[in-house]
Amino acid sequence: MHYETTMSETLRAVDIIAAKRDSKTLGKEQIQSFIRAYSEGDIPDYQASALCMAILLNGMNAEETGHLTRAMIDSGEIINLAGIEAPLVDKHSTGGVGDKISLILAPMAAACGLKIPMMSGRALGHTGGTLDKLDSIPGYSTNLSPTRFREGVEKIGFVIAGQSKKVVPADRKLYALRDVTATVESIPLITASILSKKFAEGAQALVMDVKCGKGAFMKTKEDARSLALSLVNTGGSLKRKVVAVITDMTEPLGLTVGNFLEIEESIACLQGEGPSDVMELCYRLGAWMLIAGGLEKNFQLAEEQCRKVIEKGSAFDVFKSNVEFQGGNFSQLMAMRGNARAKYSKELLAPQSGYLSEVDAFLVGTAAFVLGVGRNVAEDAVEALAGIELLKKAGESVEKGQPLMRIWAQEESRLNAGFLELHKAISIAPKKPLKAHSLILEEITN
Amino acid sequence: MHYETTMSETLRAVDIIAAKRDSKTLGKEQIQSFIRAYSEGDIPDYQASALCMAILLNGMNAEETGHLTRAMIDSGEIINLAGIEAPLVDKHSTGGVGDKISLILAPMAAACGLKIPMMSGRALGHTGGTLDKLDSIPGYSTNLSPTRFREGVEKIGFVIAGQSKKVVPADRKLYALRDVTATVESIPLITASILSKKFAEGAQALVMDVKCGKGAFMKTKEDARSLALSLVNTGGSLKRKVVAVITDMTEPLGLTVGNFLEIEESIACLQGEGPSDVMELCYRLGAWMLIAGGLEKNFQLAEEQCRKVIEKGSAFDVFKSNVEFQGGNFSQLMAMRGNARAKYSKELLAPQSGYLSEVDAFLVGTAAFVLGVGRNVAEDAVEALAGIELLKKAGESVEKGQPLMRIWAQEESRLNAGFLELHKAISIAPKKPLKAHSLILEEITN
Repeated sequence: MHYETTMSETLRAVDIIAAKRDSKTLGKEQIQSFIRAYSEGDIPDYQASALCMAILLNGMNAEETGHLTRAMIDSGEIINLAGIEAPLVDKHSTGGVGDKISLILAPMAAACGLKIPMMSGRALGHTGGTLDKLDSIPGYSTNLSPTRFREGVEKIGFVIAGQSKKVVPADRKLYALRDVTATVESIPLITASILSKKFAEGAQALVMDVKCGKGAFMKTKEDARSLALSLVNTGGSLKRKVVAVITDMTEPLGLTVGNFLEIEESIACLQGEGPSDVMELCYRLGAWMLIAGGLEKNFQLAEEQCRKVIEKGSAFDVFKSNVEFQGGNFSQLMAMRGNARAKYSKELLAPQSGYLSEVDAFLVGTAAFVLGVGRNVAEDAVEALAGIELLKKAGESVEKGQPLMRIWAQEESRLNAGFLELHKAISIAPKKPLKAHSLILEEITN
Repeated sequence: MHYETTMSETLRAVDIIAAKRDSKTLGKEQIQSFIRAYSEGDIPDYQASALCMAILLNGMNAEETGHLTRAMIDSGEIINLAGIEAPLVDKHSTGGVGDKISLILAPMAAACGLKIPMMSGRALGHTGGTLDKLDSIPGYSTNLSPTRFREGVEKIGFVIAGQSKKVVPADRKLYALRDVTATVESIPLITASILSKKFAEGAQALVMDVKCGKGAFMKTKEDARSLALSLVNTGGSLKRKVVAVITDMTEPLGLTVGNFLEIEESIACLQGEGPSDVMELCYRLGAWMLIAGGLEKNFQLAEEQCRKVIEKGSAFDVFKSNVEFQGGNFSQLMAMRGNARAKYSKELLAPQSGYLSEVDAFLVGTAAFVLGVGRNVAEDAVEALAGIELLKKAGESVEKGQPLMRIWAQEESRLNAGFLELHKAISIAPKKPLKAHSLILEEITN
């Protein structure tokens, strides 16, 4: 048995692991050389996983996390957006159920004058993915060359693309390793993973939607606040503006959970007919994007701008331009609305009269996953037309036998399995719940 | 990038790592299945190193450590000593400088009626290794077949052999991994590593010499006590008698540090002419071995027995029989004494008059390493005839210019480098030090 221990004469991987094991603060050179060597295959997985576990248990401060973020960015290519005049601001969410915010926010912010170079992700587990939703638009491609990516940002105001394998390859490698070594749940590692991707894609500032609650990755407000602070402080250590908005994810966002279903709902939102929770969040995050990009200083005026581009239809126009730019058939998309549904459907009826006291986001997300909306591993395919429509939101009164949800699946077995899951997601109480959850919980900026 | 995550449908490696990450107590089945799968190559190194780091930082109780010890034993062959009537008791030391105790203790305990199936180690870093010392006896072989091993235990009363690759292979694999992932310094992992080897070699009871101080692996009394308690409690959870004696290792043991030099000193000890510190420790550990083996209940009588077998020469006779059994040339060995020395030598003289207040065991061990006594990696060869003779011990008065040590090396460059190191190891004070260190610090038994 022989393991290689030496990274260089002076900077040994094992000593860096030992330092973090002993709760010491790692220096820039230590972090950079470790990540560089790991990324190039000169440090084996078994040393990287030991370091990840030491980081998970002993933490890293904002400065260390900044060095880690920078080192991950340096592991690959950086999207060159130099020379673009307008502020480059992006938004990212930690993932939720029914979270179609990016699809509305990106054209809205672009209509306000920002440029949004968005690289997005796919569904995993009970949470949806923006790229999977966009794939349900006929012809739409999220696979853009660097030249087309830049062109879209410049001309249209925003693009949404999949992450290039050449951008932040260290994160790709490290994330796969963390997934099988129980080291995903580390705030500094999550922070560096998110920020490195966002800054490598060319964003100058970032607004983070940190979801909190049953349907989110962060279940408690404490955990969500830790991540929010880490993102904001690490952004500060990298001299980048980062705003973190902690938002409630106990109930699904809006009225749909699915891929094409959420595209449809996003179009409604862009046409000024969106549900209040989605619009509230879009205006809030949009306002923060304008402030982060330096286009506004007054929060109320910033929100006002966002409302205006929805009302006058300019956000919708930008969306249309983007669909066409990315190869989508816009008229076909518009014609699909209300019709394009998976083969089998069913309604979930209220088992008794009263008030809908809970719609559990995690269980709705799990049901959507069972219906075919999501995936378990990256290789799985998803169903474009399956999903869930919420006919009632928490707090509303219901009559026994009244439909609460409508669901669709391409296979009858999936339909029935999803239906069973969905039953567990709802609770009906005899009295009206005292107060609904606030959607916006905390806002933190650097 | 694709990593394998599943060990079995119900027992996933990543969940076991997550449980220890969250400070949960691992169950017998979890530990056994992890070690079995790791040992068989079904769990990759990167999961094992993450678990080791979680164990290092979050600990394991005696029961978990017992399960781990048992799982490691089960990974390989067990030396079959069934049917041997006399109590099978072994001794192990955590490693020190000038620590030749096993060479004296094994024949002494065998002369008292115990059987000692000893598998021993080699020098590493600043500490010496029993096998390297025995290799300096002409013809002596520590490479014994299981049949010869058993035969020696039965006929001679003790054998000293290298560890078979078939015994506790999981420890061999895990130790190599821990060495490069900064996870060596974990009390439960050290405990399981030591106990699994000792119980797999056939010992029924064990006396541990836990060295403590500058020249030892455990630098502080707290660390030494933690390890001692873990060894004793884990032994208890496995229903095995384990005694841990914490002994001082601030100064080298006895008057020699080297391979053949220590064989020579051991012979002197067995002939009743040993230095007082070595003999004190041999009698103490020997008495504990007799008690652990159930041959004595009264500690003073047990020590008395040990003294007697030295005085009447029966311990020396057993040593002679062992040398001949293991292929050594006894008369040549006896003739080598006082003559067999490396080519170059030098004396370290007292730089001033006063009292020798310190002989730093770590620095003496480091100097011995430089002279060629030890090795840095397992593949390095060692010099049989190099080493250090201490002419004065801490506390003694010295005159300026009086020789304090004599050193030998096969190369002049090594001699000079070792000499330079050795200078740092001594301190001379104007007044007699108030009190020497006690050699025996604590004794713990289950």
